[in-house]
Amino acid sequence: MLEEKYLLMLPGPTPVPPPVALAQAMPMMNHRGEAFTALFREITAGLQRVFRTRQPVLVLPGSGTGGFETALQNFVAPGEKVLAVVTGAFGDRWAKGARALGYEVERLDVEWGRAADPGELRERLAAGRDRPIRAVLLTHNETSTGVTNPIRELAQVAREHGALVMVDSVSGLGALPIEMDEWGLDVVLTGAQKALMCPPGLTLLAASPRAWEASDRNPGPRFYFDLRPYRDGYEKASLPYTPALALLYALRESLRLIEREGLEAAWARHRLLGRMTRAGVRAMGLELLVRDDRFASDSVTAVKAPPGLSPSAIRRTARERFGVILAGGQGPLSETVFRIGHLGYVVPGDVVQALAAVEGALALHGLPVELGRAAAAAEAVWLDALREQAPAPART
Amino acid sequence: MLEEKYLLMLPGPTPVPPPVALAQAMPMMNHRGEAFTALFREITAGLQRVFRTRQPVLVLPGSGTGGFETALQNFVAPGEKVLAVVTGAFGDRWAKGARALGYEVERLDVEWGRAADPGELRERLAAGRDRPIRAVLLTHNETSTGVTNPIRELAQVAREHGALVMVDSVSGLGALPIEMDEWGLDVVLTGAQKALMCPPGLTLLAASPRAWEASDRNPGPRFYFDLRPYRDGYEKASLPYTPALALLYALRESLRLIEREGLEAAWARHRLLGRMTRAGVRAMGLELLVRDDRFASDSVTAVKAPPGLSPSAIRRTARERFGVILAGGQGPLSETVFRIGHLGYVVPGDVVQALAAVEGALALHGLPVELGRAAAAAEAVWLDALREQAPAPART
Amino acid sequence: MLEEKYLLMLPGPTPVPPPVALAQAMPMMNHRGEAFTALFREITAGLQRVFRTRQPVLVLPGSGTGGFETALQNFVAPGEKVLAVVTGAFGDRWAKGARALGYEVERLDVEWGRAADPGELRERLAAGRDRPIRAVLLTHNETSTGVTNPIRELAQVAREHGALVMVDSVSGLGALPIEMDEWGLDVVLTGAQKALMCPPGLTLLAASPRAWEASDRNPGPRFYFDLRPYRDGYEKASLPYTPALALLYALRESLRLIEREGLEAAWARHRLLGRMTRAGVRAMGLELLVRDDRFASDSVTAVKAPPGLSPSAIRRTARERFGVILAGGQGPLSETVFRIGHLGYVVPGDVVQALAAVEGALALHGLPVELGRAAAAAEAVWLDALREQAPAPART
Amino acid sequence: MLEEKYLLMLPGPTPVPPPVALAQAMPMMNHRGEAFTALFREITAGLQRVFRTRQPVLVLPGSGTGGFETALQNFVAPGEKVLAVVTGAFGDRWAKGARALGYEVERLDVEWGRAADPGELRERLAAGRDRPIRAVLLTHNETSTGVTNPIRELAQVAREHGALVMVDSVSGLGALPIEMDEWGLDVVLTGAQKALMCPPGLTLLAASPRAWEASDRNPGPRFYFDLRPYRDGYEKASLPYTPALALLYALRESLRLIEREGLEAAWARHRLLGRMTRAGVRAMGLELLVRDDRFASDSVTAVKAPPGLSPSAIRRTARERFGVILAGGQGPLSETVFRIGHLGYVVPGDVVQALAAVEGALALHGLPVELGRAAAAAEAVWLDALREQAPAPART
Repeated sequence: MLEEKYLLMLPGPTPVPPPVALAQAMPMMNHRGEAFTALFREITAGLQRVFRTRQPVLVLPGSGTGGFETALQNFVAPGEKVLAVVTGAFGDRWAKGARALGYEVERLDVEWGRAADPGELRERLAAGRDRPIRAVLLTHNETSTGVTNPIRELAQVAREHGALVMVDSVSGLGALPIEMDEWGLDVVLTGAQKALMCPPGLTLLAASPRAWEASDRNPGPRFYFDLRPYRDGYEKASLPYTPALALLYALRESLRLIEREGLEAAWARHRLLGRMTRAGVRAMGLELLVRDDRFASDSVTAVKAPPGLSPSAIRRTARERFGVILAGGQGPLSETVFRIGHLGYVVPGDVVQALAAVEGALALHGLPVELGRAAAAAEAVWLDALREQAPAPART
Repeated sequence: MLEEKYLLMLPGPTPVPPPVALAQAMPMMNHRGEAFTALFREITAGLQRVFRTRQPVLVLPGSGTGGFETALQNFVAPGEKVLAVVTGAFGDRWAKGARALGYEVERLDVEWGRAADPGELRERLAAGRDRPIRAVLLTHNETSTGVTNPIRELAQVAREHGALVMVDSVSGLGALPIEMDEWGLDVVLTGAQKALMCPPGLTLLAASPRAWEASDRNPGPRFYFDLRPYRDGYEKASLPYTPALALLYALRESLRLIEREGLEAAWARHRLLGRMTRAGVRAMGLELLVRDDRFASDSVTAVKAPPGLSPSAIRRTARERFGVILAGGQGPLSETVFRIGHLGYVVPGDVVQALAAVEGALALHGLPVELGRAAAAAEAVWLDALREQAPAPART
Repeated sequence: MLEEKYLLMLPGPTPVPPPVALAQAMPMMNHRGEAFTALFREITAGLQRVFRTRQPVLVLPGSGTGGFETALQNFVAPGEKVLAVVTGAFGDRWAKGARALGYEVERLDVEWGRAADPGELRERLAAGRDRPIRAVLLTHNETSTGVTNPIRELAQVAREHGALVMVDSVSGLGALPIEMDEWGLDVVLTGAQKALMCPPGLTLLAASPRAWEASDRNPGPRFYFDLRPYRDGYEKASLPYTPALALLYALRESLRLIEREGLEAAWARHRLLGRMTRAGVRAMGLELLVRDDRFASDSVTAVKAPPGLSPSAIRRTARERFGVILAGGQGPLSETVFRIGHLGYVVPGDVVQALAAVEGALALHGLPVELGRAAAAAEAVWLDALREQAPAPART
Repeated sequence: MLEEKYLLMLPGPTPVPPPVALAQAMPMMNHRGEAFTALFREITAGLQRVFRTRQPVLVLPGSGTGGFETALQNFVAPGEKVLAVVTGAFGDRWAKGARALGYEVERLDVEWGRAADPGELRERLAAGRDRPIRAVLLTHNETSTGVTNPIRELAQVAREHGALVMVDSVSGLGALPIEMDEWGLDVVLTGAQKALMCPPGLTLLAASPRAWEASDRNPGPRFYFDLRPYRDGYEKASLPYTPALALLYALRESLRLIEREGLEAAWARHRLLGRMTRAGVRAMGLELLVRDDRFASDSVTAVKAPPGLSPSAIRRTARERFGVILAGGQGPLSETVFRIGHLGYVVPGDVVQALAAVEGALALHGLPVELGRAAAAAEAVWLDALREQAPAPART
C-alpha cells in the first residue's frame, strides 16, 4: 500500500518543507568567503527574531543533548552546583548529564505529566544550603510528557535567587511563545529539527550577557565546544571550524518560510494543532497524560494506551496499516503512552489524518470505537478557529 | 496558516513522490550515448508492464490532447471516418479535435455522468452507412465526470465491426485495470502526470500491429509527430529528437515505485480510494454525479454542489481555509460539480483529509453538517479493506 | 575513474545549473490557480527580454523540431510556397519537414560550413516565379556546422520581398545577439535546453503581428498545436492544456540567472567561449569547418578530424579516458567532423578542460601533439578579454 | 561572468556529487524504525570497507576537531600524558586542544612542509621520562602543508612503545591508502566532507579493541560525547541521540559511489591528481612547500607565492576572474602559501582547469608566464597514467 508515503507525526525529526529539503543540494562554498558571510548574517538575523533576543544566536553541530552539555560546560564552572527541575525524560537527562559531567546536582522532581510549580521552585531555592545554586536547568516543553512548563514564572523565581536560567526549548522554540530577552532567560537552546523544520544536525543556542560573563570567568577545560570563539567571530561571520553548510542552507530557507508565515501565526497554528489533537484524543475515549490543559503542550501530545492494548501495538498498526508514524513513550512511560508530534511543518489536516489512524488502529485491534468521533471533535475546534479568523465566506 | 503546504487532490497534475521529483535534478546526459540506452530500456520495459502489452510504448512530448491528435494523424488517414463515443468533456474534445483536423466524425453522445453502453455502440455501428468507420474513439476514464467506461466490452464491439479501437486512458492507466493486449485495444495513450506520478510533459502511447499497419498505409502529411521513426528506433533506443531527459529520469523512478508496490496492489489502492471517497461524500449528504456505482471512477469523483452553494465557493474555501486543492467542473458541469482527484501518489489518509476539508467548507458556509460523518464513512470502508487484507494485529 | 563525473560539451542538452535543476523538484500546483499566474507572468516577462520583443512568447511542449512544424502549420497556409535557406542539417530538416507537411518548398542551398549570403537570397527572391513565396525559413545558428548566419541582413531582404521571416534560433537565442523586434523577425523559436540552460522539453516561440494575421487567415486544420488559444489566453495566464510544470519551474530559475548575469554579459561570455575554442583548436593544428571567422558560431564549433583518425574515435577517447562528452557530425559530416558545444551554463575554464581532452585524445591516438598548446592559445584569448574588462588586479 | 558557476578546489568542503547532494532532500524518517536500521547497516558496512577495519565505525555530529576532542576524552584519561607529533596547523591544533582539555602534552615538532620521521619518534619515546606516554597523536595528511606522514611506520614505533596510536586522517581517508587494522592504528577519524564527498557535518571514528579497553577504564566525565553508548548500540543500529539523517542519506550515496569506483581506483585517481598538480605547479616556475615528493600529499598541495605577489591576491584573482576557489595558507604560512585541494569528487580535468586559473592569475598580475606550460605538464602526467592503464585506443 505505497509504503513509501507516510505521515511523520513525531516530536522530531519533523517533516521538512520541500524548499528547505532542496536547499541542501546546492553546491558547497568556501566557508571563509563572502557568500558565506551573507548566508551567516541572514541566518543569525532570522534566529534572533525567533529567539526574541538581541544576543548572538550560535549555530552548533549536534543534537539538543550536545547543546545542553555544551551550555553547561561553558556557563557553569566545574563542580559548581545546579538545580535541575525535572518534569520528564529530558529534564532527567539534563540532571544525569550534569552529574556525569561532575557538577553537583540538586533535583526538583515533578510528577511526569505535571508542570513545574514556581512556588515550589521558590521554596526549594529559599531553603538554606551550604553552596549557592549557580544555575537552574529548565525544560520549556518536556517532549516526553507533552507538558509546557511556565517558563516565564519559573525564570523570574530563579533570577530573583541570582541563578542563571538555562532553558531547553528543543521542542518548544518556534512552535510555542518564548521571549528570551523579555523573560530574562540566560541560556536558551533548541534544535533545528523540531519547529524550525530542518533535518537534524544543528543546535542553536543564545546566551545573555550575564551568562557570557560567567563563561569568561569559567576556568573549566574546553576546546572544540568552547563557545567564546563562536561569539567572538559572530560579527565577522567567522566560525572556528567548518560548519554544516548544507544544513545552514536548509535553515536559511526554513527561516524565510517562518518569516512568510509570521512567528505569531506559527504559534497560533501550533495552538490550534494542540487543541485539535487533544479534542480528538478525548473524543475517542482515550486519556491524555497531561490532565491540566493549561500546561498541555501544543507541539506534542502524550496519550495513554487503553487497558489491554500496548502503546507499541497501536503505533505499529498506525504505521503498517494506516501509514502514520507516531512516537513511543520514554523511560517509565514506555509501556503506557504513545505520543503524537504536531510541530513544525504540520497543518490541521495532518492532525485529522493522524487521529483517523489512531481511531482506525483502535478499531482494528477490536476496541469498541465509534468511527468519526475523533475527526468530528478535531474539525469542530478547527472550525471555531477559522470562524474567529475571518467572517464566513461568500457562497458564490 | 502555512499556505505553502497544501494537499493536491486534482485529477492532474497529481502529487509527485520525492524520489521521482528529485530524479529530475540529475545531470543531463548525451541522449545518443550508452547511459541513455539503459535509461530508455528500463523505462520502456516498465511501461510495457503497466500497459500490459508486448508492443512498443512510445514516450512523446506534450500532454494527453497532443497525444490524441498524434494518434489520429498517424493511425487514421486524412478525411476518413471515425466514431467518437462521448461521455464527457474529454470525449467531446476528441470529437471536436478530430473534426478540426479534417476527419469525418460521427458522435455517440451519452448523458454526462453515465457510461457508454456496448449495446448502443453495436447498434450504431450496425446502422448501415455510406462510409466505413475506421476507428472508434473511446475514453477509458472520463476525467470530467468520473465515469469509467466498460472498455473491454466496448472494444470487443468495435473490433467485431472491424474498426480500430483507440483508447484515451489518460486518467485511467496505472490506477484502473486495463489490459491492452488481452482486450484487443489498438491504440492506448496516457499522460505521465496522472497515475504514473510524474510531473506533466510526457504522453505515452502504444499501438497494436493492426494500428501500425494502418499507419504505414496512411498517406497523410506528418513530420515531427510521425510515429514511425519512434517505432523504428525503438529497439536501438534511438529517438528522432531530443527527449525530455529530466522527465525520463522521473518516469524511471516512478516505474520503479510502481514495481515495488505492484501494479495490482496499485489498482486495489485506487479501488479503496474511490470507495472511501464516495462513501464519505454520500455521508455528508452530497450527491455524486455518477449514480451507478459500477461505473464510478476510482481515480476521480465528481460531486454535485448542494443547492445555494456554488462549487467554486466550496473549492475556494477548501483551498484557502483548509489547504486542500480540488478541481472544478468542466464545460456544462462547471456551475454544478466539483471534483476530487484521488489518483497517483495518494493514500487513504489523504482522502480522509480531503473529505474533512469538504465537510469543513460546507460547515463554514453555514450548511447544516454533522461533523465527522464523512470521516466515519471513509474509515469504515478503509477498515473493511484492511480486515480483508490481513488478520487483526496482535495487541502487544 | 569516477565515470559519473563528466563534462557535457554538447550543443544540447547542455549542463543545467543547480538551482534550475532543483526547482523541478518543487511540488506540483494547480495550473489553473493564482500561483500559476505568477509563475507564468514571471516567465513570459523574462522570455520577452531575452527574445527582445514586445510580443507574447509562447511556451510549448516538445523540442525545436516540433516547434518549427507548429510554426509552419500556424503561420503558413497548406500548400503555400516557402523558401528554405539551407546551410546545414537543421536547415535541411526544415526544408524536408515543410515538404513532408505538404508545402511547396524551394531551397537555397549553401555549402555546409558557409553562411547564407543576403545578396544571393535577394537574387533568388527576385527571380520571377509563378507563385509568391510566403515565408523564408532561416537558421540563426546552424548547429550542425557551427555557422551563425547574418540574420539581420537576411531578414531585411526577405521582408523587402514581403515574405514572413521565420527563424530557427534553437542554438542561438540566449547565447548570440538576436533582436526580434528591431530586426523585423516574424517568427522566432528556440528550445529551453540550449542557451537557456533548462532540461529539454520546452519550445519557446514568438510571432509578430504580421505573422499572427497570417495565422488568423490560415484555414489549415490544427487542434492541439493551434497557437491561437495560447495567444488568446496569454494575458490571463490561461493555457489550453496542462503545461510541463516542472520545466516551467526550471525555466523561471534560469531566466533569473540570466537576469543576474545580464543578457549582454551572457552574449559576451559566449563570444569569449567561441574565440577560446577556435584558438585552441587551431593551436592543436586541427582545421575548423567554418573558414570565415565572421560567421563562426560562438555556441558550437565543428572541428575536422585529422587524416587517419575518425571523429568518433576522438569522441570515444575524449569521453572514456578524459571524461568530456563531445558531439558527432551530422549527416554528410558524420565521418569528418566532431563538434564542441559551448553554450548555456559553460564557463571559460570548461573550454580549457575540453581542449585538454581533445589534445590528450589526439596524443593517446599517437598523433604528434605538442601538449599544452591548446590551453596556451585559449588562455591567451581569455587573458585579453579579462584585461579589457578591468585593470590589472592589485598584488597584495 | 556567470559568477554562480565556480570550481571548488579546497581541501574541504569539497564538491558534492549530484546523487549525494540530492539524497539529502529525501523525507525524514523515524530514527528508531526499521528503515533506519537498513540505512545504518549499509553505511557502517561501507565505512568499515573504507577504513579497512573490522571494528565499528561510529558516525558522530561535528567536524574533525570535534571528533579529535571526543577521541581524546574517551580514549585517554584526564591528566594523562600524550605525545603530539606536530607537522603543521592541524597537528598544532591537536596539541593545543589536548592541553586545553587538561592533558599533559609533549610535542614532537617537525618543520612545516616536512614529514615526521619514525626514527625521531622512536628516540623521543625512548628518552626516559617520569610519566608514560599513553597516546601518540598523529596526522595522516597534514592539510595545512600538504604533507602525508608515513603513518604505517610511525604507528609501528608508537605501538612498540605501548602507546595508543591516534590518527587524524581527516583529509586522507578515502583519498590516500590507510589500513587501520593491518597497520595497527588504535583510533582513526575522518570527516565526511573531504574525500568522502559529503557536505560537512559528520565525523567518522573507529577504535581498536585496545582503545575501547582504555575507554572502559577511563573515569573521566563525559556524557553526550561518551562513545560507549554508540558502540553498545552499534549492533542494533541504535543511536543514543537523533542523528543528522539528511547527512546519513548523503553518506549512503557517497559510499555507493566509492563502491562503484572501487577504493583502490579512488586512491589511484588521487595519486594522479596529486602528481598532475605538482607537475603543473613546477612547470609554472612556482615552488612547492613540500620538497620531498615521497611525502607530498595527493589530496592537497601547498604552493609558495612568487616574490612580490601575495597568496591572497592570487586566490582573489583566481576566484573573481577565473572562477576557481583556492585555499589560503594557515597560521605562519598565511602570507606565503596558497593551497590547491584535489580530493573527493575531483577529476583530472578539474586540475587542468585549476592550473590554468593559477597560470592566468600570475599572468594577469604581470608575472612573466609562458602560457600553457602548466597544462602541458599536467597533461603529460595524465597521458602517462592513461597509457599504463590501457593500450592505445583504436583509430576508428
